Amino acid sequence: MVQDLYPSRLNEKASIFERKDPVIHNEKAYEEGPLSRKELNFYDQNGYIMLEKFFDDDQLNMMKQELQYTMDQNRHRDSDEVIKEPSSNEIRSIFEVHKDGGFFEKLSQNERLVKICEQILGSQVYINQSRINFKPGFKGKEFYWHSDFETWHMEDGMPRMRALSCSIILTDNYEYNGPLMLIPGSHKWYVSTSGETPEDNYKSSLQKQEVGVPDNKSMEWLVKQAGGQIDRATGPAGSVLLFECNTMHGSAGNISPYPRSNVFFVYNSIKNKLEKPFGGTEPRPEFLANRDNVKPIEPAKSLNYSRKY
Amino acid sequence: MVQDLYPSRLNEKASIFERKDPVIHNEKAYEEGPLSRKELNFYDQNGYIMLEKFFDDDQLNMMKQELQYTMDQNRHRDSDEVIKEPSSNEIRSIFEVHKDGGFFEKLSQNERLVKICEQILGSQVYINQSRINFKPGFKGKEFYWHSDFETWHMEDGMPRMRALSCSIILTDNYEYNGPLMLIPGSHKWYVSTSGETPEDNYKSSLQKQEVGVPDNKSMEWLVKQAGGQIDRATGPAGSVLLFECNTMHGSAGNISPYPRSNVFFVYNSIKNKLEKPFGGTEPRPEFLANRDNVKPIEPAKSLNYSRKY
Repeated sequence: MVQDLYPSRLNEKASIFERKDPVIHNEKAYEEGPLSRKELNFYDQNGYIMLEKFFDDDQLNMMKQELQYTMDQNRHRDSDEVIKEPSSNEIRSIFEVHKDGGFFEKLSQNERLVKICEQILGSQVYINQSRINFKPGFKGKEFYWHSDFETWHMEDGMPRMRALSCSIILTDNYEYNGPLMLIPGSHKWYVSTSGETPEDNYKSSLQKQEVGVPDNKSMEWLVKQAGGQIDRATGPAGSVLLFECNTMHGSAGNISPYPRSNVFFVYNSIKNKLEKPFGGTEPRPEFLANRDNVKPIEPAKSLNYSRKY
Repeated sequence: MVQDLYPSRLNEKASIFERKDPVIHNEKAYEEGPLSRKELNFYDQNGYIMLEKFFDDDQLNMMKQELQYTMDQNRHRDSDEVIKEPSSNEIRSIFEVHKDGGFFEKLSQNERLVKICEQILGSQVYINQSRINFKPGFKGKEFYWHSDFETWHMEDGMPRMRALSCSIILTDNYEYNGPLMLIPGSHKWYVSTSGETPEDNYKSSLQKQEVGVPDNKSMEWLVKQAGGQIDRATGPAGSVLLFECNTMHGSAGNISPYPRSNVFFVYNSIKNKLEKPFGGTEPRPEFLANRDNVKPIEPAKSLNYSRKY
């Protein structure tokens, strides 16, 4: 058996060690891309980058309409792909939108986005997971600190750190409506957590994560490495936040009147396809971690598509 | 029976109307005071003001030590005055610290603070309520929007808006550790809430408020009046936040590693002493709302005191 590069949940004490993978996966064929050297360096150092006003207002309005349409279509659908608030039954997320045969599929293939992901990940890419998120005003719940990679490695079998999340921000993110918080530089370290993964953990962890949660000591250490700083992904609607699969992030609740919504795509390198989960459990369902018929994305120049009513 | 100027909790629909009291209670004898005209105007317009680095580092360190001492003294005390987190049993607040016969009593009489309160409230003042607050890192809970005056009027019988809260900040307040959020200008409006007050409401409302909660429509309206802005009381330890008794405020949870602590005094005008609660319930206990032997504060020039060990 090959040694696991990123062990976790061994029911021992939590520990922290350096990542074993590059952040920018330099490959000659993909070196030239939409991001400048300066932008790549920022991402390399911090583990994220906010691209302000990536989409223009027309594109933004189209996205908002499509999000509303998809919400309406799913309001009364009882499905694992539709996640609701624990207390209020309101829709919080809808998964697998990149397979809708329509707008969000086209959006996930957006040429500029895909080229950026190829530039960072040094290969062709595919979508490992997608969703649209709604965080209502007044009662948006907090989401505690976590590294996505820890879960994806343990529960989905993602072998290496060669993936990134792309959050397309559809509503203005302020300091006071529960923006995503990120710890700069935290992607350079792997927090191995304690505790074992129960079977079907995803059914509760999408509402509140109980395993794979970093310990307080590691969190304090990561924040200290960042010079005591915690960054917030604030910015106008239409911006795009890219963050590395191992960047530690979370968000406080939102008691402001301002709802928040975004489109979320996880791009994975085609050379980093899922294997058996490293935590020893059964793989999570396809809507959380794509492994069937995975093919590299063909970039699409336009967002135009025909809706199948 | 005299008409209630600030009716609320009548089990009807929520409503909102203009306040009937001045914000700066100009009285010749108290017009000259520590705050400048510009500072008074800011407070008048916004309903709060942050006085940065009001206390120096020596004073700050003394306060932190005294807070720690008081926490240690109360850790195993089971009393209404000691409020614990709903889920973790950790101390969240200790009330009535201005009667400790020691440091916090002296602090509540601090000449500069008292003179500012007299300047704003246009009379001598007394302490209506005091507490020290601890908001731990990682798991500090949110506190939903509320106007203190609504509760003090309904449950304590505070007749008019002629009181203010003084929060002495003992730890740096950042955007990312759940700072107090305030809606600028909200003190000019009274949000009459729906629902009746149950007896002994305070026993649960100190942990999570259920009545006296403003409705979403009023909150949206207040934020709109503020030009869409919500302010945050960020600033270095040693700063003092003063806010008007009717300013709408709240705070999100704190998942950062940074704990937060402060000392909290409510100064009320000696001309605004408590009457029978306007909500018709029995008065809340003395530690929440002082009505016994209330006397104007004699300002104290120094923080020195002798501890009775």
